[in-house]
Amino acid sequence: VASSIDIAVVGAGVVGCAVAYELTRRGGSVQLVDERPVGMGATQASAGVLAPYIEARAEGPLLDLTARSLALFDEFVAGVAAASGSRVEYRRTGTLDVAMQPETMKQFGGLAALLAKRGVEAEMVDAQAARSLEPHLAADVVGGLLIPSHGFVAASELTQALAVAARRLGAQVSDSGHVCRIRRSGDSLIVETSRGNLAAGRVVLAAGSWTGQIDVDGSERRVPVRPVRGQLLHLSWNGAMLNRVTWSERCYLVPWGDGTLLVGATVEEAGFNERTTVAGVRDLIEAASELVPHVWTAGFVSARVGLRPCTPDELPVIGPSACLPGLLYATGHYRNGVLLAPLTAKLVADAILDDRIDPVMEATLPQRFGKL
Amino acid sequence: VASSIDIAVVGAGVVGCAVAYELTRRGGSVQLVDERPVGMGATQASAGVLAPYIEARAEGPLLDLTARSLALFDEFVAGVAAASGSRVEYRRTGTLDVAMQPETMKQFGGLAALLAKRGVEAEMVDAQAARSLEPHLAADVVGGLLIPSHGFVAASELTQALAVAARRLGAQVSDSGHVCRIRRSGDSLIVETSRGNLAAGRVVLAAGSWTGQIDVDGSERRVPVRPVRGQLLHLSWNGAMLNRVTWSERCYLVPWGDGTLLVGATVEEAGFNERTTVAGVRDLIEAASELVPHVWTAGFVSARVGLRPCTPDELPVIGPSACLPGLLYATGHYRNGVLLAPLTAKLVADAILDDRIDPVMEATLPQRFGKL
Repeated sequence: VASSIDIAVVGAGVVGCAVAYELTRRGGSVQLVDERPVGMGATQASAGVLAPYIEARAEGPLLDLTARSLALFDEFVAGVAAASGSRVEYRRTGTLDVAMQPETMKQFGGLAALLAKRGVEAEMVDAQAARSLEPHLAADVVGGLLIPSHGFVAASELTQALAVAARRLGAQVSDSGHVCRIRRSGDSLIVETSRGNLAAGRVVLAAGSWTGQIDVDGSERRVPVRPVRGQLLHLSWNGAMLNRVTWSERCYLVPWGDGTLLVGATVEEAGFNERTTVAGVRDLIEAASELVPHVWTAGFVSARVGLRPCTPDELPVIGPSACLPGLLYATGHYRNGVLLAPLTAKLVADAILDDRIDPVMEATLPQRFGKL
Repeated sequence: VASSIDIAVVGAGVVGCAVAYELTRRGGSVQLVDERPVGMGATQASAGVLAPYIEARAEGPLLDLTARSLALFDEFVAGVAAASGSRVEYRRTGTLDVAMQPETMKQFGGLAALLAKRGVEAEMVDAQAARSLEPHLAADVVGGLLIPSHGFVAASELTQALAVAARRLGAQVSDSGHVCRIRRSGDSLIVETSRGNLAAGRVVLAAGSWTGQIDVDGSERRVPVRPVRGQLLHLSWNGAMLNRVTWSERCYLVPWGDGTLLVGATVEEAGFNERTTVAGVRDLIEAASELVPHVWTAGFVSARVGLRPCTPDELPVIGPSACLPGLLYATGHYRNGVLLAPLTAKLVADAILDDRIDPVMEATLPQRFGKL
C-alpha cells in the first residue's frame, strides 16, 4: 500500500523538492532533509530557462530528456501552484538565439533542420527581423533562431512552492544537519547525519554537487558529480527591455515580469568555492552589453552564484543503486535541474511507487559510471 | 542645568548619531529620530576613509575642518567603543596616493610643500618605492605620495556604536516615520512627522541629502543640499592585498582586517535614485584593476550605494538657523561625513550646551546661503 511507504529525500534543491512533492502527491510518506534551507544550492542561482533545443543542439538522450520534461511543464506548474497556493512566474514566450557572426547562422540552420524533423516550430530570422522582435539588440547582430515553445520559470518560487505543496500534502521538511552516510540496517536504510540517524524504507539522493560527499555503504566508488560554478547577475530596468529569453554565444538574458533581468551564466571549474567574483561580474556585464548595449544603463541588483552538479557525460544520474538496494540517485542535472525537475520526479516516483523503470533511464542509470 | 535640556536630533546617519552621542555624553537629554534604521543613508556606502590632505588639497576651511576633526579621532573612537562596549575597526595606516601619469607627480609636489609648511609628515616616493610599499600595484605606476597620518574607520560599526553609546547614556533612539516640518509652538519646537508630533527645546537637523525636504517655519528657502550618488564595491580577498588605503585619480581601495576590500567611489548626479548600476560597477572594477591588477581575481561580495549631501561650495552646513531660533543644522558633509563627525558633534554640542560658536563655523554657517 502506497501510504505505508517511507521515503527519505536527501537534498532540498529543485530536484529534491520536485521528487518529494511527486512522491507525496502520489501517496508516498516522505521526509525531505537538507542542512541548508530549501533551494539554497545550485537552485538559488538558476535563471530558470526552459530551452531544450538550445541546451541540447543534437539528437541524443539530453534532447530526449529535456524535451520530454518541457512537455510536462504546464501541468506540473499548474499542479504545484494549486497544491501550494503560491504564485509561480512561468512563461513560454520563446527564445531568440542571436548570431553575432555569420558562421553561427550556419549552425542555426543545422539545428532548424533537426527541429523541423522533430516537428518543433523554429524560425530563422535575419538581422532586421531579429531587431524587430527585440528592438534593444545591438546594431551589428547577424540574425537569429526563434524557438517559440521555449520559456522560463522562477526557479526559487517554483522550489519554494514545491516544498510548500509537499508539506501540505503530508511530507515532513526538516533541517537534518550534515548528511554523512547511508547504510542498511535490517529492513531499513539509515541516513546518518550530524544531528543523528533517520530510518527509511527508501532513500533518494538528490544532493546535487554534494552527492559525491555522502558515503553509500557497499559502493566501490562515489557518484562522479563535480561542481561547476555558475555566476548570474540580477539587473533592474525601467519598463520592458526584452520580450523573450535572448541568447548569444556568451550569455543569456531573461526578462521578468517585474522589469528585472537575469544575465547568466559563467561556467567555471572552481571546486566548492561558492562565491561571486570580480572577473565573473565583469565578463557577464561585457557579454550582456555586447548583445544588448542598453544593459549599460540598467541598475545592478546583485550577483548570484551556484554550483551545478556535472557528470563526465553531462547527463543526469537518475536510477536505483546496484550496491545498496532501496537507494535511488536523482542528481547530476548540471545546467538543467529546473528544466528536468518534472521528468525526474516522475521517473523516481514511477520507480519507487510502481516499480517501473522508464526506457529513457538507460542513459541516466548510475551504473554507467561503474559499481554504484 | 544641562540635564533639563531637551533636544531632538533628526537623522540617524553618522553625523546625527555622533551629535546625539556627544550631546548625551555631556548631559543633554536627547531623542534621535529617523524613518530609516541607524546608518542607512549615505553612511551605509561610506568606505570610512580619513584623509584630509587628499580630500582637501589646498589651504582653506575644508582643510581646517577635516584636519581638526582627524586630530579628534583617536579619543573619539576610544570613547565610543568604551561607552558602547562595541568593537570599532579603526586604523591609521596612512594613504598612498598613486600617480599613473608624470604630471600627477607635480601636483603631489605642490601638496607635499603645503603639508611641510603645516608640519604634516608626507613623503614623495618613486615607482620602485611605491611598489615596495604596495607590491600589488600595477607595473606602470609613476610614483606616489605617502601620508602616514591618514587612516580609515568602519563607518557602519562606528555609527552603530554611536547609537548604542547614546542609548546607554540615556538617549532615546526611535523610528519617527517621515519628518515633514519643524515649527515653533510657545517655548518648544515641534517636529511634525508622519506618525505624530514631537516637542523639543532644541532641534538638530542632520538629515543629510533629505534635509532640504523638511519644511522649516520662517525660512524663506530650503537648505541647498543635493544628493550626489556614490557607488562602492565590497570585494573579498584571500590574505592581505594592500597595507594601507591606496588611491588613484579614478578610485581608492581600503583594505580591511578581515581580508575584504572596499573600492570607492563613483560621483554621480542622479537625484534621489539610490541604486547601484551596471555602469557604476563596471567603472569601479576597471579603475581598481588599473591600479591593482590582482583585483581581477578577487571575490565580489556586493555593490553598495549612498547619496552624499553636497552643498554649492562643498562645505558642510553646521550652525544655528537665523529664522527658527532653537534649530541647528548639521548636514551637507558631502564626502566627509565620517571624517567630520567628531568635530561636528563637538561644534553642535558647544553651541547648544555652552552657547559657544567656534570661529571655524564662520565657513559653515547656514546663512552663507541666504535667510536660513
